[in-house]
Parts: sequence; C-alpha cells; structure tokens
Amino acid sequence: MHIDRLETPVAVVDLDRLEANITRLQAYLDEHGIANRPHIKTHKIPEIAHMQIHAGAVGITCQKLGEAEVMAQAGIRDIFVPYNIVGRAKLERLMRLARRVRMSVTTDSAVVMRGLSNAAQQAGLALPVLIECDTGAKRCGVQSPQEAADLARTIARSPGLHFGGLMTFPNLEGTDAFMRETRALLAADGIPVECVSGGGTPCMWQAHTHRELTEHRAGTYVYGDRHTIESGAMQLEDCAFKVVTTVVSRPTPDRGILDGGSKTFSSDLLGLEGHGLILEYPGAQFYAMSEEHGHVDFSPCPRKPEIGERVTVIPNHVCVVTNLFNQVVGARNDAVEVIWPVACRGALQ
Amino acid sequence: MHIDRLETPVAVVDLDRLEANITRLQAYLDEHGIANRPHIKTHKIPEIAHMQIHAGAVGITCQKLGEAEVMAQAGIRDIFVPYNIVGRAKLERLMRLARRVRMSVTTDSAVVMRGLSNAAQQAGLALPVLIECDTGAKRCGVQSPQEAADLARTIARSPGLHFGGLMTFPNLEGTDAFMRETRALLAADGIPVECVSGGGTPCMWQAHTHRELTEHRAGTYVYGDRHTIESGAMQLEDCAFKVVTTVVSRPTPDRGILDGGSKTFSSDLLGLEGHGLILEYPGAQFYAMSEEHGHVDFSPCPRKPEIGERVTVIPNHVCVVTNLFNQVVGARNDAVEVIWPVACRGALQ
Repeated sequence: MHIDRLETPVAVVDLDRLEANITRLQAYLDEHGIANRPHIKTHKIPEIAHMQIHAGAVGITCQKLGEAEVMAQAGIRDIFVPYNIVGRAKLERLMRLARRVRMSVTTDSAVVMRGLSNAAQQAGLALPVLIECDTGAKRCGVQSPQEAADLARTIARSPGLHFGGLMTFPNLEGTDAFMRETRALLAADGIPVECVSGGGTPCMWQAHTHRELTEHRAGTYVYGDRHTIESGAMQLEDCAFKVVTTVVSRPTPDRGILDGGSKTFSSDLLGLEGHGLILEYPGAQFYAMSEEHGHVDFSPCPRKPEIGERVTVIPNHVCVVTNLFNQVVGARNDAVEVIWPVACRGALQ
Repeated sequence: MHIDRLETPVAVVDLDRLEANITRLQAYLDEHGIANRPHIKTHKIPEIAHMQIHAGAVGITCQKLGEAEVMAQAGIRDIFVPYNIVGRAKLERLMRLARRVRMSVTTDSAVVMRGLSNAAQQAGLALPVLIECDTGAKRCGVQSPQEAADLARTIARSPGLHFGGLMTFPNLEGTDAFMRETRALLAADGIPVECVSGGGTPCMWQAHTHRELTEHRAGTYVYGDRHTIESGAMQLEDCAFKVVTTVVSRPTPDRGILDGGSKTFSSDLLGLEGHGLILEYPGAQFYAMSEEHGHVDFSPCPRKPEIGERVTVIPNHVCVVTNLFNQVVGARNDAVEVIWPVACRGALQ
C-alpha cells in the first residue's frame, strides 16, 4: 500500500534511509574504535533497537526504566540507563531487570549511590554504575574531577556495585579535560576507568576528536530532524522521518491549516524559527500551532496548496514527536512495509 | 493507598476539585441559559465525560474522530467535532459514528462541505454541519458574515446535510457582531441559526456577555493549569491536576533536577515564564527541560530540597500534559480512588 492511502497525520519512516543512518554511524565509530551504544529514546521501537545491535552496537541506552523493561522483554541484552534511579519501587524494578539482562546506570551523588548499593547487595548482584559528569551542559552530574574521583572510590568499595566508568552528555569542549583529570586521580588509587561514555547526535561526527571517549550514545541519528539538519550533522536527504499531513482549511489566500498541531509536533523549537519544514513548500512558514491544527503562512510560495492536498513536514525535534504517536509506518519508496507500535511510549519512568 | 506511594512522575487528579469544577461551570451556564458542551481534549477520559453529561452538559466536544470513536464506544450519545473532516477514510469513519450517535461537525469551505454532503447522502443521513467562523483568532474559519451566510445557504440546500448553526473559538470581542450579522443575513432567507457555539476556558465566566452565544465549549476548566490561573479564570485552589515528581539530582547548591522534562510537561509556555509552578517551592524557577529531566533553580528558596524529595508541579498547559501520560490517578485527599487510562490519547485524527 502506498503511504498516500494512509490517513493523516501519519508518521512515516523511510526504511532505506533508516538503515543507511544506522550503518553510517556504526562504520564511523568502528573506524575510530569507539563503542556504539545508541539511545532508543528517539524511536522507542524494539525492532529498530535490534537493527542497531545487529549493525554492531554494544548495547542500547534507555532514558527510563520503563523503556528498558520493554526492550528487555523484546530480547535486548545490554541496557544502559544514564539516570539517577531513586526510590524503593524503581530500585526493585531495576534489580528485576538486572537479573535478566546486563543493566548499567549512573549516579552523581552518594545518596543515589547508597540506594543502588543497598538494592544490588540485597539482590546479590554486582551492578555497574557510571558517574555522570557535568562537563558543561549544566544538567545532572558531579561538578569536578575531584568530586567524580571521590564518588568513584566510594562506588568501588560499595557492596553490590561495580565502578563502570564515566558518562557525560553531550560531548563538549570541556569534556576531555574533565575525563582525563578524573582518570589520572583514579589511576593513583589503582581504579581503572573502563568506559568513558559520551553522547549526542549533532556532535556525533566529532566523537573521534574527544580522545577520552570510549563509547558514544546518539539517538536522533536514526531518523534525523530539522534541528539535526541545521546542526550540519545530517542532510535533508538523510532524514528518515516525516509526518504527512493534510491541508484542511485555506481560510485566506495566504493562510493554510494542517491537520497536525502541538499534539502531533510538540512545541519544541530547539532554537529554530517555526514548527517544521514543509517539503513541498519550502518557503512556507509554519508559524503557529493549536493542539490539532498547524498554522502555515504560504505567502512566500508561488503556488499555494488546495484543501485536501497532502504536505510533508520534517519536524524540529523528532524524539518528542514519535513520543506523541501510537505507531509509525515503516516504508520503502513510500510503500508500507511495517507498522510499528511506538512500544516504549508513555512507559513508566 | 496514599499517592506518596506511587512512582513518579505521576499525574494526579483531585476528584473533589474536579467535581467542583464541573458543577461550577454547569451552574454558571445554566444560570445564563447557555448550553454546556465541554471539550474532552483536556482529559480524554470517558468517565469524566459522563460526569460532565450527568451534571447537565448537552453533549461533548472532541477535536478528532479518534476521540469521538472512543467516547461513542463508552456510551456518549451526542458528539460535536468542530473540525474540517477531509478525505474518504475519515468521512467513512464519521458516517459510521453518525449512524450510532448524534454527530455534528463544522466546515469553513465549500470543498469540505461537498465531501460531507456526498458521504452523508450516501449514508442516508442528515448530518448537522455548523460553520466555523474566524471572529479574530485567525485559525480556521470563514472570514466574514457574508461568507458565512453564503456557505450556510449552500449547506441548507445540500443533500445529506442539516445547517446546524455557527461556531467560533475562542469568544472574542468581535464574536457577537460577526454572529449577529450572519444571523441577520440568513433571517432574510428564512434560515434559522439554531446554535451559536463559542468556547474557551480563560473566557468562560464572560460567556454570558456574548449575547449571541447559545452554547459554550470549555476544556481546561475541569482540571485547570498555570495558564488558566494566570488568566484569572481559576484560582490555584481550584486546580485539580498536578504532576508529582522526584528530585533526582542536586548537582549544585542551587540547581535541582526533577524526573520530569519535556516528555512529561511538553514545551508549551503559553506566554509564561518557566515550565510549571512548584507548589512546595513557589519561588523556584523551573527554567529548562531535557526530555526526561526538569531543570530547576532553587536559589530564591530559603530551604532547598533533598535528593529523593517529592515536589508537585502545576503545569503550564494541562491539555498537552495529559496527552503525554498513559494514565492519570484520581485521588481524594491524596488517597487513590481510581486509575484512569487516558483513553483517547494518541487516537487517530
């Protein structure tokens, strides 16, 4: 079936491009001896995770336990959750997972570490725990190599835990110095840093310039989006994800209304102007959204769409868009090949 | 079970406040002889729709056919979809619904109207169709009373259709003049305007000042959110929806990270500063989000939270937040009473 026969708005993944994106990043990281641990938060689909593993990824990254639970049930055997897991219920879920698959997590504090240690000890496990380092992004993470080294020493002597290395996001200018200094501090104590895990899609082709990194986590690269294109990391021709919409209203000569709004595209701008790129009308300005309406100014376009015409949108930020769809359609040359439930969507933290 | 025992992030609805909100708007609209047709896009939960009907609503409003399909299956008998339904597949779905329940829709063009007429005629139905009027919001809608009257005349003589009246969103300063003029134009042809449907939560208590309106559609009023509070239409004490989160990181003395980000709260700002109001720390600035992390500056707060502490967030825009949760918890005095799947979430347009 051609995708033109599907009701809109519909999320379509170009399978040829998806496969090419998976292969291309794997080849690059292989070439530079960097382990690939793709982040599945972008697609949330087990079959795509398996494609990534099959291409050579060492395992996957999930951002929440609920995603890891779905992926473990789908047969993925090595899952990293770079998140501070806090509270008894979540620790129990983590241990249930860790009995079945190789789980690893992060901490950036002694408080979180003690929770992990108690739970893992009780479960009779040796849980790999990496230290999240704030190397400039100002989100979570220890603030200095000294703090990282102190926490690493505590992890190394904590029952139930295994010191798994260092983690940051994204790879930044200050990343290498931070990691190098931490490694030096720990070397003095004979504590090896077995993994230094970085991440990010816009910075993925520079991963090899961060000499400290042994592993890279990218998510968006499988699909691509307007933000990734703007960053220069992917070309429009690489973009494997699109949302096909229908023009449902043409109230004025210039204004067109699409059948997708903030509940289809999210409100993420990521610094961009407008809410997406309209392929058939590249000059059009997708200037506003209601929840189920996209408001587009077609005045810069010589030809303007008719009511009922389909237009294709490359969204600003694909990760939050797939999270709004129950399913995405996998297609080759716009012929439907598979319909994937977005299996991890809405999963518990 | 107390909600403190639920894993975070969790969406909690205060049932006492929910009931009070439903009762209060119904009483106000009853007092002014305005029909109440609440918009279920906010909650997407059949039981709440039934509560609204039981309180006196004449029917409900859905923003897409997928929502109407769920609600019809849950026993709601009168559903208005104020949307241009375009394309064969959607028209067939609409007709299947219209055979079972009273469906009404809108159009703002002859193109959409012809599709509705053909489908309804074939189905042997008389489908009520209202005209969407752009009375200042600049979304969909005919642009002038003359255009509205012309389209109404065409609907009135189209097989399969019944002219159901006029619709706009939200109620604005120009709404009454537009509706009055359209009504006058149609009166000359003997075409009655049986319904003038307005909408909006921020403007709900002024509905009676729009003398042309015979019906009001509000969605957010059931829950309330930070935007509604800022608009003055509800007080914080009326707000029936909250997201309980956990502080998972305190990387610096001032910064705290919550376990909810843009995949929990969406990025909707609606003109507000920050991504939500933190009840326990009203001075805190919820200044940024990653997908699963909320970034909060606690520097204005004399006491600052510990890792593992729960904090309660009133989101900016509740409609897009419920759309991100698989379920919401209904509680009374913070004791769990019901767990509702967000049944229409992700439903087809």
